[in-house]
Amino acid sequence: MSSTDLATFRDFALAAATRAGDAILPHFRRPIVVDDKGGARGYDPVTEADRAAEMVIRDAITARYPDHGILGEEHGRATGTAPWTWVIDPIDGTRSFITGQLHWATLIALRDTAKPRVGVVHQPFVGETFHAIDGGPALWTRAGETRTLTTRQCARVEDAILACTTPDMFKMAATRGAFDRVSTRARLTRFGGDCYAYCLLAMGLIDVVVESSLQPYDVQAVMTIIGAAGGVMTAWDGGACDDGGNVVACGDPALHPRVMALLAG
Amino acid sequence: MSSTDLATFRDFALAAATRAGDAILPHFRRPIVVDDKGGARGYDPVTEADRAAEMVIRDAITARYPDHGILGEEHGRATGTAPWTWVIDPIDGTRSFITGQLHWATLIALRDTAKPRVGVVHQPFVGETFHAIDGGPALWTRAGETRTLTTRQCARVEDAILACTTPDMFKMAATRGAFDRVSTRARLTRFGGDCYAYCLLAMGLIDVVVESSLQPYDVQAVMTIIGAAGGVMTAWDGGACDDGGNVVACGDPALHPRVMALLAG
Repeated sequence: MSSTDLATFRDFALAAATRAGDAILPHFRRPIVVDDKGGARGYDPVTEADRAAEMVIRDAITARYPDHGILGEEHGRATGTAPWTWVIDPIDGTRSFITGQLHWATLIALRDTAKPRVGVVHQPFVGETFHAIDGGPALWTRAGETRTLTTRQCARVEDAILACTTPDMFKMAATRGAFDRVSTRARLTRFGGDCYAYCLLAMGLIDVVVESSLQPYDVQAVMTIIGAAGGVMTAWDGGACDDGGNVVACGDPALHPRVMALLAG
Repeated sequence: MSSTDLATFRDFALAAATRAGDAILPHFRRPIVVDDKGGARGYDPVTEADRAAEMVIRDAITARYPDHGILGEEHGRATGTAPWTWVIDPIDGTRSFITGQLHWATLIALRDTAKPRVGVVHQPFVGETFHAIDGGPALWTRAGETRTLTTRQCARVEDAILACTTPDMFKMAATRGAFDRVSTRARLTRFGGDCYAYCLLAMGLIDVVVESSLQPYDVQAVMTIIGAAGGVMTAWDGGACDDGGNVVACGDPALHPRVMALLAG
């Protein structure tokens, strides 16, 4: 797969994300029915905006790439015959969305049988997009402006800015303890980021993200962006994090083994 | 003081906030020197953007209202001869700002000897402004669009969405315990809001904000906005919160005594 082909897929994903944004924006900061799909697992809000945005993206994929597979947060899996699967989170950060906050976005990834190869993160209200293809470039765009995303150097945990969506995502004492070992040593911990934490790590403004209980559609778009920007993103044990779970991302690859050591205890 | 006079002050504050934004934006998401003014109190970042933005506002006030007092986060207090004092936080949410996140804004309040009468919250990157004068209206504006801010009904803690910038702001076990009593009962807790939590409460999207360790310039602008939108904002014991400290804001006045009871233990 050449980078030209990946760029074609990326441009398709950018267009689909823009159309999803058109479906989302009429619901943002407006009275909206919030359903709870969590049940016994706890509060897990979903809205018509999530469902409608995912259908816009799925319909675009089915029309353009009918042999590709699709995995979406709200409407599940559709197996394809091609070695390509689109992985969609129509609104990553639904809690942020329903409270009118700004750290949410539409995530679209495209993966082959090995790994994610295209990642798009689009926030339609702010009007900004972070995106990348495997091997680069990783870019930020807004209103005609484009910047290359590059992580920054920060090899020591004591100098690092740590981000995490919420301490409540560490549901077991062991994972909370692991997070706390990094947080107490880091220079600063910021909560409330959702997908923005990973994008801003790619932009060189955050040094490490430590999260837990993630899903495949939470991570695959930002994996490509972080990799193409010079960072590293794995499971806490250093393995692949394509399936979500316990995830650590570092802007400086030299920081990564040090954070993993703290997470291991 | 008539509402016409307050509206004149508000329009001046809106113009000053816009000029402050022009001073801030060149520094946003760019390499920037972050100084630590916290010392033994812990990490407290401040940047050239904070200092420059406050000077822009102070210079505008001194030119237009030379007899007014000024209290700013970065450059301190200047006593005036008039009964009016401007209270300025050039960048509320500096931690959010230096990490490239979006929940930060310029806060400008104007108070008389009794209470804050004008509040402006301006986020120049997103291009949106929340503002109010005492007695109303409370408004949100962006790109020529204007909406009236109105809090929503939510009388029960169990139905409430709670917001707070970070659990780390509760520095004593007693205040952390008080927050946890509200958080464990609330339907959802969101971290990472800074001034946005209060503005989105005024917009009817968040029901309660519980915070601690605040300063006068953190609260006075949003006090007017929340009051004019139909909410209530006090200290945890129900007293005035003009000086900051332990603060609770509720969109529905019927929720307020219930949250205060939980905070009291």
